[in-house]
Amino acid sequence: MSIEQDIRRIGERAKRAASAARKASTADKNNALARIAAAIKASAEALLRANAEDLDRARAAGLDAPSLDRLALTRDGIDSISEGLLQIQALQDPVGQISQLSARPNGLEIGKMRTPIGVVGIIYESRPNVTIDAAGLCIKSGNAAILRGGSECISTNRALFECIQKGLEDAGMEDGWIQLVQTTDREAVGALLGLDDLVDLIIPRGGKGLIERVSRETRIPILKHLDGNCHLFVHEDADLGMAQSLVLNGKTQRYAVCNALETVLLHRALPQAFLNQLMLALQAEGVEIRVCEDTRARLAAPDQVQLAEVSDWSTEYLAPILAIKTCDDLDDAIRHINQYGSNHTDVIVTAGLSAAQQFLREVDSSSVMVNASSRFADGFEYGLGAEIGISTDKLHARGPVGLEGLTSEKFVVMGTGQIRS
Amino acid sequence: MSIEQDIRRIGERAKRAASAARKASTADKNNALARIAAAIKASAEALLRANAEDLDRARAAGLDAPSLDRLALTRDGIDSISEGLLQIQALQDPVGQISQLSARPNGLEIGKMRTPIGVVGIIYESRPNVTIDAAGLCIKSGNAAILRGGSECISTNRALFECIQKGLEDAGMEDGWIQLVQTTDREAVGALLGLDDLVDLIIPRGGKGLIERVSRETRIPILKHLDGNCHLFVHEDADLGMAQSLVLNGKTQRYAVCNALETVLLHRALPQAFLNQLMLALQAEGVEIRVCEDTRARLAAPDQVQLAEVSDWSTEYLAPILAIKTCDDLDDAIRHINQYGSNHTDVIVTAGLSAAQQFLREVDSSSVMVNASSRFADGFEYGLGAEIGISTDKLHARGPVGLEGLTSEKFVVMGTGQIRS
Repeated sequence: MSIEQDIRRIGERAKRAASAARKASTADKNNALARIAAAIKASAEALLRANAEDLDRARAAGLDAPSLDRLALTRDGIDSISEGLLQIQALQDPVGQISQLSARPNGLEIGKMRTPIGVVGIIYESRPNVTIDAAGLCIKSGNAAILRGGSECISTNRALFECIQKGLEDAGMEDGWIQLVQTTDREAVGALLGLDDLVDLIIPRGGKGLIERVSRETRIPILKHLDGNCHLFVHEDADLGMAQSLVLNGKTQRYAVCNALETVLLHRALPQAFLNQLMLALQAEGVEIRVCEDTRARLAAPDQVQLAEVSDWSTEYLAPILAIKTCDDLDDAIRHINQYGSNHTDVIVTAGLSAAQQFLREVDSSSVMVNASSRFADGFEYGLGAEIGISTDKLHARGPVGLEGLTSEKFVVMGTGQIRS
Repeated sequence: MSIEQDIRRIGERAKRAASAARKASTADKNNALARIAAAIKASAEALLRANAEDLDRARAAGLDAPSLDRLALTRDGIDSISEGLLQIQALQDPVGQISQLSARPNGLEIGKMRTPIGVVGIIYESRPNVTIDAAGLCIKSGNAAILRGGSECISTNRALFECIQKGLEDAGMEDGWIQLVQTTDREAVGALLGLDDLVDLIIPRGGKGLIERVSRETRIPILKHLDGNCHLFVHEDADLGMAQSLVLNGKTQRYAVCNALETVLLHRALPQAFLNQLMLALQAEGVEIRVCEDTRARLAAPDQVQLAEVSDWSTEYLAPILAIKTCDDLDDAIRHINQYGSNHTDVIVTAGLSAAQQFLREVDSSSVMVNASSRFADGFEYGLGAEIGISTDKLHARGPVGLEGLTSEKFVVMGTGQIRS
């Protein structure tokens, strides 16, 4: 059987499983999650052995330390993956929830009911926890899932998938509900992206190369984020201590994450002393600064920073580098963010209600924050439980996507025999 | 300037206008709607003259009577188009609405705020009211719009667009908010579909050919419906008088509409007398019947109906033809609908709560109804005001799409300086 036929067969099985998944009761879904969590705990040794195989292969292939780190599974990591399923179990089941129910003049009662999307394909790189997070979220939201992990993690993913199968079997559920693409051949991704008659949604999680490939090659709707070029604007009325603390946390708490700050915008009326103190604090953390000319003109030590180029405004550094720009006012800052940002997460620091309201309303990003660290843009921090990804697209779901983003709403209409005249 | 350059310039202007549209207050938007409504009323003569040009051209080109009918604008039609804008004016503005606001343990307040999508491209055929409905819905929802109507309607659309421009100008608004593609060259559609860096959503409204072309040619997200293959299932416990009335209304009230019934499913336990009476009532209305073998075996006059072929189950007749199939039970009916239906609108007639609940939950269509005519699946009947289209896609918006479907929700986060540790 060719890879294409093999993947099509997986898609057809997922489509059938989606019918059963849509009907599953909350109790059955929760039971399946608990059984999988138990199977993972019971399989710790086998999971560590499988992960060691992946790590050996990766070391032999010369993977760098951060990549090895992302790949590695520890005993604590296994506990926390298993724990994650129990957290999903504790979340409210969105399926079947009815909202906006109201009666029309003719007596029809019309509302919206949350319903699973159907078949979700998830294409991801390294991090073995994604296999379980994605499976858990799809089970709870009543969707069938086709998982395609990175080849560097295939042994671990296969071992985790055995736990999923065992858990579903123990719970008496159809095991086609969650499927793992077993081949590491890249052709399998292309075949999956071609199943537009069977797959309802593709979620790519990984580097820019992966996400661009997926966007280019499929006609299936996708939920994705390409860049996290996050901004923080310090308004003239900001609490300056708070502003400094939020800049430092947003930039330096972790560098290689999509919700780290990449550009800070400063209101022109802020005191020069604040600017210089912020600069020193960032430099003490080893952060390289790139500034606009206006900002440099106000620095005590202008020769210690680089001038930013236009390309800096749209760069996601994912590194200890920060761009700083002086803005004339709030409008100017909002314009800059909407022009150069990536619709991910942007923050204002202000004590003023009207500035906060304007910023929240006019910044066109998936998360817009007042007086909080950009690092909070995350499904777990938002109380969604796990997240299956972060969307910077504008349709369907924006920001961290949890159970609700894996469902959509259909209209339900209840009558007593009304006909249209 | 080539058509491609021309359309790109329209897209760039729309992108700029979208920033202003996002910020517009409800009062300003309502004022613009009222001014356009007034301009349309004041221009009735000019609109009728322009429409006469289209009708002359269409007659000369040999368009059939239903097409001419769709194209024609009457004085009453002009009043009702203008009235439609005032109805949109009366709807609640979705932009800026915050829902699901709650506090996290660390004191962050997190909720979701409705926000415009940005730039919406609407590609449609005949019916001149779409020009105004689409403009009105986009203005109220804070989106910039690029309208591309059918070439057969170009004179009417240009005249209507002059009213839009005049209204926006009278209200002191940016007139690039709504733009009309002035050329009738088909190349313009391709150019519009290629603007994936400028346009956020494409809504095609028209025949299957148009919708298939749009799906094939663009990478911009689209909201569409291809088919309206609507079902009505008569459960064994149904009120039989109600069932017959809903079948007749769903099939015969209008034939060429997407929410008309195309297949009726009958529970096997229904009395034979009901089946025969229904058949006579349909035949009296001139409806041709195509039945499964089981159904035919129970008919008093089996030679007066055709046997259905498998292809009948997935056909949208849009004509006085109805397929009828006998089902073993509710599960069988749901399976049939999910297999052969088009995810548009499906109805159960039942007196039982549990059958109603199961049908509502398990039928995977954009509108699922109990004891009501499928003909009610319509934005106006649902109380959404006008509709910009009906979606049978599964992401973002399902069913009739009004103001809410032209917005999405971003996360808003309000803190007091919280940082992540």
